[in-house]
Amino acid sequence: MAIAKALEASIQGSSLIRAMFEEGERRKIALGPDKVFDFSLGNPVFEPPLAVVEALKTLTQSEQPGTHRYMPNAGYKETRDYIASLMADESGLAFLVGDICMCVGAGGALNVILKCLLDPGDEVIVIRPYFVEYDYYFKNHGGQAVPVLSGPGFQIDLAAIEAAIGPKTKAVLINSPNNPTGVIYDQKALEALGGLLTKKSAELGRVITLISDEPYRALVYDEVKPPCVFNSYNNVILATSSSKDLALPGERIGYLAISPLHQDRALLGQAAPLALRTLGFVNAPALMQRLLPMVKGAKVDIEPYRINRDLLYNHLTSLGLDCVKPQGAFYLFPKCPIADDLLFCEKAQALNLLVVPGRAFGLAGYFRIAYCFQTEMIRRSLPVFTELIKGL
Amino acid sequence: MAIAKALEASIQGSSLIRAMFEEGERRKIALGPDKVFDFSLGNPVFEPPLAVVEALKTLTQSEQPGTHRYMPNAGYKETRDYIASLMADESGLAFLVGDICMCVGAGGALNVILKCLLDPGDEVIVIRPYFVEYDYYFKNHGGQAVPVLSGPGFQIDLAAIEAAIGPKTKAVLINSPNNPTGVIYDQKALEALGGLLTKKSAELGRVITLISDEPYRALVYDEVKPPCVFNSYNNVILATSSSKDLALPGERIGYLAISPLHQDRALLGQAAPLALRTLGFVNAPALMQRLLPMVKGAKVDIEPYRINRDLLYNHLTSLGLDCVKPQGAFYLFPKCPIADDLLFCEKAQALNLLVVPGRAFGLAGYFRIAYCFQTEMIRRSLPVFTELIKGL
Repeated sequence: MAIAKALEASIQGSSLIRAMFEEGERRKIALGPDKVFDFSLGNPVFEPPLAVVEALKTLTQSEQPGTHRYMPNAGYKETRDYIASLMADESGLAFLVGDICMCVGAGGALNVILKCLLDPGDEVIVIRPYFVEYDYYFKNHGGQAVPVLSGPGFQIDLAAIEAAIGPKTKAVLINSPNNPTGVIYDQKALEALGGLLTKKSAELGRVITLISDEPYRALVYDEVKPPCVFNSYNNVILATSSSKDLALPGERIGYLAISPLHQDRALLGQAAPLALRTLGFVNAPALMQRLLPMVKGAKVDIEPYRINRDLLYNHLTSLGLDCVKPQGAFYLFPKCPIADDLLFCEKAQALNLLVVPGRAFGLAGYFRIAYCFQTEMIRRSLPVFTELIKGL
Repeated sequence: MAIAKALEASIQGSSLIRAMFEEGERRKIALGPDKVFDFSLGNPVFEPPLAVVEALKTLTQSEQPGTHRYMPNAGYKETRDYIASLMADESGLAFLVGDICMCVGAGGALNVILKCLLDPGDEVIVIRPYFVEYDYYFKNHGGQAVPVLSGPGFQIDLAAIEAAIGPKTKAVLINSPNNPTGVIYDQKALEALGGLLTKKSAELGRVITLISDEPYRALVYDEVKPPCVFNSYNNVILATSSSKDLALPGERIGYLAISPLHQDRALLGQAAPLALRTLGFVNAPALMQRLLPMVKGAKVDIEPYRINRDLLYNHLTSLGLDCVKPQGAFYLFPKCPIADDLLFCEKAQALNLLVVPGRAFGLAGYFRIAYCFQTEMIRRSLPVFTELIKGL
């Protein structure tokens, strides 16, 4: 066998959930896509804002020489200046071009950050439930996840994090607005976390970096404004993308931003483009880098998301399901009415409802519904959810 | 210090050559870009073929719904079918969609392949001189480079490769047309290598995969046709990109192709998209994936490259430099007329000629000239090369 043992294990390890996805795909082909309610993937059906579509036309109609060439690994200066000014406006801190590295999506940005930070055996604290890909990302760089259960309402359990911090802790990774729960950490929660990390970094004589994964930042409801993570702690690196706010997930455009207050600001500013290069990303896609400064302020219409959230949340809670109301992102993470989340999702699938078991996010007994789809499909699914819950 | 020790070492390790690049950049700013002859980077100044420019206009003028959404990690079926048919035409083998995984450039493709193949401690044989990034790529996945010196004319030294193969050998990585030498391995050389790998795989009871990195495949001169690697050995994976043939290096579009004859074909076809996802690439940029089947047969005009090669090759050999005449790619790799390649490159830099010391490619005593630039600049540089060589 030529294949790496670790990857072979990954293929087999994900087989239960993959089998479920494949069965879903088979059903779509057999029954027709409109007969299957696929809430399993966070792949929005909505199109990018008009400003994005127009800017792409402009860029390709009057192509400047050199549009598709290599640029410095960290990205075009104009694009990085633009992102630095966004970060400065948001945080009040003096972000410079060297603090920004354009990346291949937020997943790419997280891998660059982890490559910059992790020595073999280093630990990264994550809050359960969490995006399943994080585990792979840590392992890519010799790191180890230390999952800490969230507190009530999926909020940060500060005491649990304090208990998990040890001499190998290199970073804490948070994701707000959160996938899979949709919760947002408020200013007070972030400040408390920042205070803890300041205290523990001093105690351990070792900088603990707070990595903030924020691709859903622009997708918030009910006039909630997510606080700025750079104002809660000094040693912060932010990872994000335009996948959700500009609906460009397939184009792989994102960035990382190093806090001007990070103790290793200058070294990290050198390390990030080197990691980007040596991991094989090389640079963020050129055309999409040029696009960003042209579409300042543009974002997808979040009203369809809010309508979807309300429809599903109201319906599921009316059926007696225990569910935290999401303030952002486009996921619901209700408690399963039966203990076994895998069995629950199989029963849902038998009714052509595709949802993801909570164990895929490190928290069994729950399930995730993505609601970034046409409202019409959501409406049609409601009686099927009723049938599912009543039939248990 | 928050930064990973390995990355800190990389920053420091590349400092000599980086300092040289930085000095070059300073000179360009101080003296004006036309006063500095920068042959250091393989970043072509030529524009993509007209067909590419037109196809990008078409794609963005009449954007179809879903153009920028996620697709399956391996890429659009249409694009993969198109690549599979190209590979089938070239090799006469029955490539299917599952053998192709669209990637983020060839650097991304190589990292996906290495992630699929390498267990910690596994060795990959490379032929010196070689693209310096390979060492990083191997280390990313716990692997180890085993560099083997090339034979006369930078060709494959089969005996040296045979001697280097051992129980930890997982792959041999070749690059033809070659960076930095411009040489091409012919059919006979590839068949001999294939024969050796078949024999050694059987002896060791372990598949040795031949990884062929071919981004320069379309850039060949003098009517040379590079042979098809898939016809020389069964266990082959090819990595390539559209960076050079379509002049799209900044857009990060490439792919890997698994030989239908590879012993682990099916498993590798599953492993590659999983590795692509878990490494944080997720998928190749969507718009560029759509572009490829629209521009079948398009490639950059290689005539300017040939003119540049001839100008430089003829001039340098007339000055007495020992240089293998490149048959492809856009690099020359002459022997330094003094033993110390770093000192030689510093002397060149003092005359505003920027070239890269051979030690950056694992072979001290040589230097690399990239010639993917305006012929006018090449012409102006010739007297400066004369001054440099005569002044030693």
